Parts: sequence; structure tokens; C-alpha cells
Amino acid sequence: MKLLTRMVPALDWARDYNREYFASDTLAAIIVTIMLIPQSLAYALLAGLPAEMGLYASILPLIAYALLGSSRTLSVGPVAVVSLLTASAVGKIAESGSVDYITAAIAMALISGLMLIVMGFLRFGFLANFLSHPVVSGFITASGLIIALSQMRHILGIDAHGDNLLELIGSLGANIGSVNGLTLVTGGAALGFLFWARRGLRPLLMRFGFTGSSAAMLAKAGPVLVIMATILASYYGDFGAQGVALVGQVPRGLPSLSMPAYDPELWSDLFVSALLISIIGYVESVSVGKTLGAKRRQRINPNQELVALGAANVASAVSAGFPVTGGFSRSIVNFDSGAQTPMASILAAMGIGLAALLLTPVLFFLPKAALAAAIIVAVTSLFDFGVVARAWRYSRSDFIAISTTIVITLGLGVELGVLSGVLSSVLLHLYKTSRPHIAVLGAVAGTEHFRNIDRHNVITHKNIVSIRVDESLYFANASYLEDYIYNLIAKDQDLEHVILLCTAINEIDMSALEALEAINYRLKDQGITLNFSEVKGPVMDALHSCDFLEHLSGRIFLSHHQAVKALKCDEIEPYII
Amino acid sequence: MKLLTRMVPALDWARDYNREYFASDTLAAIIVTIMLIPQSLAYALLAGLPAEMGLYASILPLIAYALLGSSRTLSVGPVAVVSLLTASAVGKIAESGSVDYITAAIAMALISGLMLIVMGFLRFGFLANFLSHPVVSGFITASGLIIALSQMRHILGIDAHGDNLLELIGSLGANIGSVNGLTLVTGGAALGFLFWARRGLRPLLMRFGFTGSSAAMLAKAGPVLVIMATILASYYGDFGAQGVALVGQVPRGLPSLSMPAYDPELWSDLFVSALLISIIGYVESVSVGKTLGAKRRQRINPNQELVALGAANVASAVSAGFPVTGGFSRSIVNFDSGAQTPMASILAAMGIGLAALLLTPVLFFLPKAALAAAIIVAVTSLFDFGVVARAWRYSRSDFIAISTTIVITLGLGVELGVLSGVLSSVLLHLYKTSRPHIAVLGAVAGTEHFRNIDRHNVITHKNIVSIRVDESLYFANASYLEDYIYNLIAKDQDLEHVILLCTAINEIDMSALEALEAINYRLKDQGITLNFSEVKGPVMDALHSCDFLEHLSGRIFLSHHQAVKALKCDEIEPYII
Repeated sequence: MKLLTRMVPALDWARDYNREYFASDTLAAIIVTIMLIPQSLAYALLAGLPAEMGLYASILPLIAYALLGSSRTLSVGPVAVVSLLTASAVGKIAESGSVDYITAAIAMALISGLMLIVMGFLRFGFLANFLSHPVVSGFITASGLIIALSQMRHILGIDAHGDNLLELIGSLGANIGSVNGLTLVTGGAALGFLFWARRGLRPLLMRFGFTGSSAAMLAKAGPVLVIMATILASYYGDFGAQGVALVGQVPRGLPSLSMPAYDPELWSDLFVSALLISIIGYVESVSVGKTLGAKRRQRINPNQELVALGAANVASAVSAGFPVTGGFSRSIVNFDSGAQTPMASILAAMGIGLAALLLTPVLFFLPKAALAAAIIVAVTSLFDFGVVARAWRYSRSDFIAISTTIVITLGLGVELGVLSGVLSSVLLHLYKTSRPHIAVLGAVAGTEHFRNIDRHNVITHKNIVSIRVDESLYFANASYLEDYIYNLIAKDQDLEHVILLCTAINEIDMSALEALEAINYRLKDQGITLNFSEVKGPVMDALHSCDFLEHLSGRIFLSHHQAVKALKCDEIEPYII
Repeated sequence: MKLLTRMVPALDWARDYNREYFASDTLAAIIVTIMLIPQSLAYALLAGLPAEMGLYASILPLIAYALLGSSRTLSVGPVAVVSLLTASAVGKIAESGSVDYITAAIAMALISGLMLIVMGFLRFGFLANFLSHPVVSGFITASGLIIALSQMRHILGIDAHGDNLLELIGSLGANIGSVNGLTLVTGGAALGFLFWARRGLRPLLMRFGFTGSSAAMLAKAGPVLVIMATILASYYGDFGAQGVALVGQVPRGLPSLSMPAYDPELWSDLFVSALLISIIGYVESVSVGKTLGAKRRQRINPNQELVALGAANVASAVSAGFPVTGGFSRSIVNFDSGAQTPMASILAAMGIGLAALLLTPVLFFLPKAALAAAIIVAVTSLFDFGVVARAWRYSRSDFIAISTTIVITLGLGVELGVLSGVLSSVLLHLYKTSRPHIAVLGAVAGTEHFRNIDRHNVITHKNIVSIRVDESLYFANASYLEDYIYNLIAKDQDLEHVILLCTAINEIDMSALEALEAINYRLKDQGITLNFSEVKGPVMDALHSCDFLEHLSGRIFLSHHQAVKALKCDEIEPYII
């Protein structure tokens, strides 16, 4: 039973479900539904897909996550970055808007869903840890910029495409002559209103007598107001006839369920992109889930999240949707509107279902410029340019990783951007640990403490050198240590004992063990002993499992103080400590 | 001048060159030449190339390395693993033996050479550190197995091909019916003699009056004896007419020099493989160079080695050769025969040049089975199956990395094998550091030392918990630490102070800083202070560069003892230490 509730967390919350929860959840569901309608249409547009697919991707996936997810308030559906990644990946293998394009986007949801489920069963949740936070925010900022720029064509009413900053700017510049005036007015007005609404709507509503929290909630409905206003304007002003791009015919009704066919060639083309989308989507979702969970002291199970997001994507694929994940803004709205359990998401899914049944005729008149404005305003709220400055001040290597990610994302597109983000942070970490900080130590007078001779005024002894390596010893730094010690003994002809203080050594892998063996033999050759002090338990256990200690020219000491005392005694100065 | 001698190390040794050196170098050159002739023919066969290309690859590359290399005794030329990698990469884009195949192999040498030179100028020598030693020996053992198996077709006189163990076994099995008896006898005899010669020839020679060292040297000439004997047998026994595969027509003379044409499509096809070959070749060569250098206290300059090996490969390409690198067995022979300077290699290159001018008519009759036998015996000396057992005993993660490398190399081929070796060792390292060892500490009675409460009998204090994280804090383990501390405070309701002992923390990156900020706020919320002790200089410097310390709920202490003393005092038990 415990296993079952862990596999299907819905069993847990459903047991204690009561009328009070239902009331809160219903209210949250209504607010989220209103917000989700424009959002899902907009992200379908961003992914280069028909508007109805945005609605489809916001029905079954919500229910799947509600049943399996470990977060109580996360809201799943199409999100900006994943939609952009989908467009970028699918755009490489099919013409935007074609049937193949749609098939590929659906297949992408299925592949990515299956990958997530497999990763969940393999307990790969820890993988999310390999993406550094600052790198992720750099990536999201850069892709937000690309998204905003890619939507400018809808605001301007021109044709422009591109996967990166230069292509987009070039393409916009080339077509800037054919701007449609009415489109620009519609888009510009929508943009202006939405940017103003972010800060100005709430105080205005409060002046009209709304309480602080309901005003805050209503202020989030800005996009809905824009959609309604532009639909009315478009209908009565006959925008379509004046060259304004409209959403147009949207099929009425719920999606029909069908399993996408297995197409080996397509699947292998999509494989790498699907992996990227899965990981990025998962990282984004888990970080939102953790943030919300922390506020109510609820815990997220990373492996369960993989399975739940995987199921949501499979559900999206079988109902003609595209890749989804937990979104930041929608989850915040869900949380702030008082959602208590995932029932809120199930109710919101029903709300979107109703919209698909009833609202589609109205959507015909919706100008794409209004949706583009909603996207642009949404992504600008994700911008965090400050992270670059903070990184510059705090850590040069974080700065390099973040700027690499941003530059590659802007210059070469989102997929290479993510990859370079992961690679650069891992490589920089390896590079740093491959050249560890090594200090030569001396005793602090009157204590048993040893400190860096370069930073402190300490006592050293002729014939003994004390070294502290500030890093675990492993393949990447094994030869660095060798070189360091060989240089040291070349400089000091009187040396008789080398003592390695091991407080910072948490592991010695086989490559490092081989290096230590080489060092031991080389020192022995020259009549110098190699000693260790304060070796940690797990490291000592490992050294005991091989024959290194049998050949060791020196000894192992419990404390560094003891080591220096003992080896100094060997040199017939026994009473001067 | 100093820069110039670093760039062209030949200027250094040439200055002090004397007659004594010349005598030693000449002797070494003669021995190496005799050994290199069969070896270079054999590795050309292994790479699927005409025999003369092996000779070509052993002339100019040796001279290029002699002028630029930082090792005095390394011998450069075709080697087993690099030849196999070349065959595997080039075989994917052209039919073995075709003109395109030869063109691609030459292009591979050029691309790989240019890559190495660029890496050298970028000072990327440290990259070699990212290959763990045990993984490299696992890879070499596995590719040795594949090489030995791939040569069995020449011993059996049948047709069989494949990139991995299963393909090779399957292919050998399918064609086993068409074994050529005389080929098998020739190959079997050669194999038998060579295996016996490895151990038995030296004692025999000594019984005939040779001194120990000259007997050892002569014993290494086993392959030459085999080549001479089989050429004679083949000539007088007319082996060719009886279906024994012979080396056949080998063009007489030196290679003509020409720069391979730039072919964008071919180059981009070869790019990834060339990178692999460059890195593997470089790692193999540097480790041989270091081993030899250590014996005579000569130092290797990793970046200079990149440039020198790059130049050797470019030299190979312009003289119709294929990828080369520093080889283990030939360098040992060169060293043991008393080579003092790279002049020995220049003389050996002239020796091979003479062979190309004079010996090629004789090579016509050489059975391929004899060369195959020489290859098989050479690679079996590289086998190190013991590394798997040693890793099993010493470290589970090294064992996983090694076995992954071996299994993938055998099962999917050498290229994927190398890649999975690098990836698995890096990922395992990250995985380990992402779940660091965290110990709760107590004081050792009567001392200022703190130790793990699970391993030692120590004194702890109510309301205070002391934690030591045995790893630097960075993106991969930031959230693990968060989870650990949240679990800890959830279990202990009386907690007032958390003290983090930072002796093993060599770095706190931005992701970890964000995690510490989150921990700080969460603890503050619950009225618990977060304190640090024994923070290292560089970490303290970084923390001072941001505003973390301003918001910190607790304090920073110089020693953990002071921290516990001070915080305990807060709890009105000031006199009991």
C-alpha cells in the first residue's frame, strides 16, 4: 500500500479529500482555466502549431500529472521554453504548419514522455542536479530573448524566421518594409496594456474597491482581457479583410484519442532533441515544484516527478498535443488562488475541455498579434540579466559557464545553448578540480593546528614538508599532484619526509592510487619517506583493500601534529617542539 | 632563445651533441629500424592499407617528432590502437582497399595532425588528465582483443570482417569452412614461434654465449626472423600459387610529397573520429613519454607534445602515410638499445627510407599470415585483465567505468568504447560528488578534535548539531545538502544552532551559494542559526564578495571548537566544556 501511494500519489490526497478542499480547488481551477486558455493558444503559436493543439495539450496532461505527480500545486501544460525547443527541433525535419510538422510534434511528446518514464524507473532524478542554477537562468533569459524576438513578426505582421538572434534580426530587417499597420497597432496596444497591467492594474483595481489579493488575482487576467478586447475589435472592425493575421478556423470539440504510430526514422531524428526537451522540461518543472513545496512544507520526489511528467507527455501525445511540463507562472497562479490538491488541475482540465467544445468559433477572430503580445510579456518576466553580473562578482567560472550558455543560445540557437551550458559547467568543474589548491603547511605556534605558510606566520621544520591538497584525488588531478611533489623535492635537497594532510581528501580513485604509488617509489629512490595524516575513514578503508600500505615508505598518522612530532624526533631534535 | 628551444627542443640537444651520443644513437637506430620494418607493414595491414603506407608513415613523422618533441627517446610511428581506430573510422565512409579509403586515411592523418597542433597552441595538454588510467588500460585491452580477433582471418586465410566482437566471431564462424591449410600452417607456426620467443628465445641465446642484454635485444627481433623465414618459405615453396595471401607488389622508392586536397564533406565526416584518434593517440604517447622520462629524470612538456605529435601526423599525411603516435614497444626498444637523443629516430627514419628503396621486391613474397601473427603477439602484450579485478577490489566506481568501457568496446566497437570510457568516468565522478559523505560530529573528549558520531565515541550537545560535508559544494550536490539539512531539522525539534565544519569544502559555487541562502532563510524561519567553522581562505574570499554574510543568521568561527564553545555558552552552560 505504501509503495502504491508512492507510485500513485493521488491515492494519498484523495483519501483525506473533503468539501473544504473542493471549494478551494474549484476557485483555483476557474482562475487557472481563464489564464490557461490564452496561454495554451499562445504557446501552440510559438511552437508553430495550430491553436487547438494548445488546448489539447492542456486537458489530459493535467489529469495525468494530477494522478501521478508528487507536487500538490504544480500546474502542467505547454510552456514557453519547451515550446520553443519543440519548434526548433521539429522545424529541422519538416515545414512549419505541414502535416509532417504536426506529426513530428506529437511524436516528440510521446518520445520525451517515454524517456521521462524510463528515467524515472531508473531513478535518474538526480540528473537534474547536473544543471547549475545560474546556467539554467542564463539559458532561460537567452531563450526568452529569442522567443520575444521571434514573436515580433506577429506584432509587425510580417514574415520572419530564424533559430538565433542574428537570423531573426536579419529576417525581421529584410521584411520590415511590409509591416501591416493595423496589425502593428493591435499588437502594440496589446503589448502596451500588458506591460502596464503588470504593475499598474493592481493598484487601479484596489482604488476601485477590490481587496489586495483579489486585485492581484484579477491583474493576472490581463491577457484574457486583451484576448477578449482584440476578438471584439477584430470581429467588428473586420480585421481579417485588412490583412491582420487571425487564428482562423479552430476545430470544435475534444481531441480524438489515438496512439501515434511508431516511425523509426522520425524517432531517431527526434531522439537527441527529445532528450534535451525532457531534461530541460524536467529541471524547470522540478525547480517550480520545489519552490512551491517549500512554502507549504510539502516534499517533491524527483523520481516520481519524472514518471508523472512522462505520463503527462504521453497523455499529450495520445490526445494530439505537444510536449508539456510544469510551468512557472501557471503554477504560481494555481498556488496563489488557493489550490489545495491536484483536484484543482483536474477541474481546470475540464474547464479547458469546455472551452474546446464551446469557445472555438469565437477564437476565429483572435489576432495572432494579441497572442504574440501575451507571449512577449510572459517571457520578459523570466529575464534575469542580473545573474551575469552576480556571477562576475562571485565566481569567474560560473560567469564563464553562464556567458557561454547565453552567447551560444543567442548565436547558435536553443539546442546548442542547453548543451553548451551543461558541458561548460561540467568541464569547468573538472578543470578546477584538475588543478587543486595545494598548500605547504606550518604549525601555528602553541597549537596543534597547521596552516598555509603563504597566509599565516607558522613554524616549519627542516627535512619535513607538510602538504595539504584541497581536493579529492581522482583521475583528473592525479598527474597534477605528481608534478607538484616532484617539483617540490627537486627544489629541496635536504628533504627527508613528505607528509600529506588528508582532511580535504574525500576519495582516492584508482588513477590517483597509481599516482601515489609512483610518488612513493620515486621518493623512496631518493631516500624520502611519504606519510599521511588525518586520513578519513572511507579513504582508509579503500587503502586497506589494496597493497599500497605494504609498500608505503612512511606511515599513517591520526593527526598531523603527531606526524610532525614523530618524524621530527627521528631527526634527533626530540625536545624542541 | 629560451622560447625558441622550448618550441624546437631539437635546438637544445643538438647544441651538446657529441660523438659518443652519435655512436649510441646509431646502434639504437639500427635495432629500431629492424624492428620497425615488420611493425609498420603489419599496422598498415591492420588499418586496411597497402603495406608501403606503413613504411611511409615511419619516415617523415619520425623526423618531425625528433625536431619538435620534448621526449628524448619516444619513438613515433603507426601503432596498433590508432591503426584500428583509423580502420574503423575510414571503413565507415569508403570500401576497404579502394582509392577513397586511402585518401580518407591520409586525410585523417592531416586533420588529426592539425587538431593536435591547434590544441597544443591552446595549451590543452591538461585534457589528457580527463582520461582515467584504469579506463585507458581497459580500453587498450578490449581493443587488443578486437585487433587479435580481426587478424585471425589472415591466420586462417579466410574472409571475415567486423567492428566488434560479435560481428567478428560471427563472420569468422561463417567462413571457417574455407580455411586455407598452408596459410594456417604458416600463421600457426609464426604465432607459435613468436609466443615462445617472448619467453624462450632470450635464455636460449644466453646459453649460446650471448650476454644478458644483447640476448634480450636479439629476442625482440623475433618478428624479423619470422618475416625472413616466411619470405624464404613462400618464395621457394611458391605459397602464392597455393592460395596463401601474400603482401604482393609494393611500389619501390620513397613516397612523393603532396598536400592532401581539402574536401569539406570528407573532412566533416572524419571530424569526430579524428578528434578521438588525436586524443587517444596523444594520451598513449604522453604516458609512454612520461614513463621513459621518469627513468632518466627528463621532463615531458604536454603542450609541446601536442604540437610535436601534430607535426608528425601532418608529416605523415604529406608523405602518403596514415595516423601515427608514440608507440609503447618501439619506444622501449629505442630506450633499451641506448638511444640518447632523438637523433636515433632521425637515423631510424633513414633506415626505413633505405628499406623502402631496397627491400620492397623481397616483401612481395611475405605471407600476410606472418604479419598477422606479429600483430597478435604484439597486442597480447598490452592485455591487462588484472585491472578489472584490481578495480573490483579497490573501488566500485572505477570498476563500473572500466567494465563499461570494455563491454562497449567489445560489443559496439572502439569509437563508442572510448567515448563511453570518458563519459562513464566523468559521470561517475560527478555522481559520487553529487551525493557527498556528510557526517554529524561530536567532540573527542579532552581534545579540540571533532569526529563522526557513527565512527567514534564522542560528546555532543543538545540544541547544537555539527555537520561536516566531505566535498566541495557545487551545482551537482547543492540540492543534496539542502535535503540533508531539512531532514535533519525535521527530526530534531530542540535544535537551535547548525554548525557546518568546512575543512573539506574547497569551493562554493553560485548554485551552492543559492542553496546556502535558501537553507539560511529556512532555518531562520524556524529560529535556528546557521554557522560555519574553519572556512578556507579562498572560500572566505568568495563569500566576502557577495552579500551572503550580511544575511547569515549565525556566525563564522575560526575553529569548530570555538564555535561549539561559543554557541554552547549562549545556552547558559558556560563553564562545562
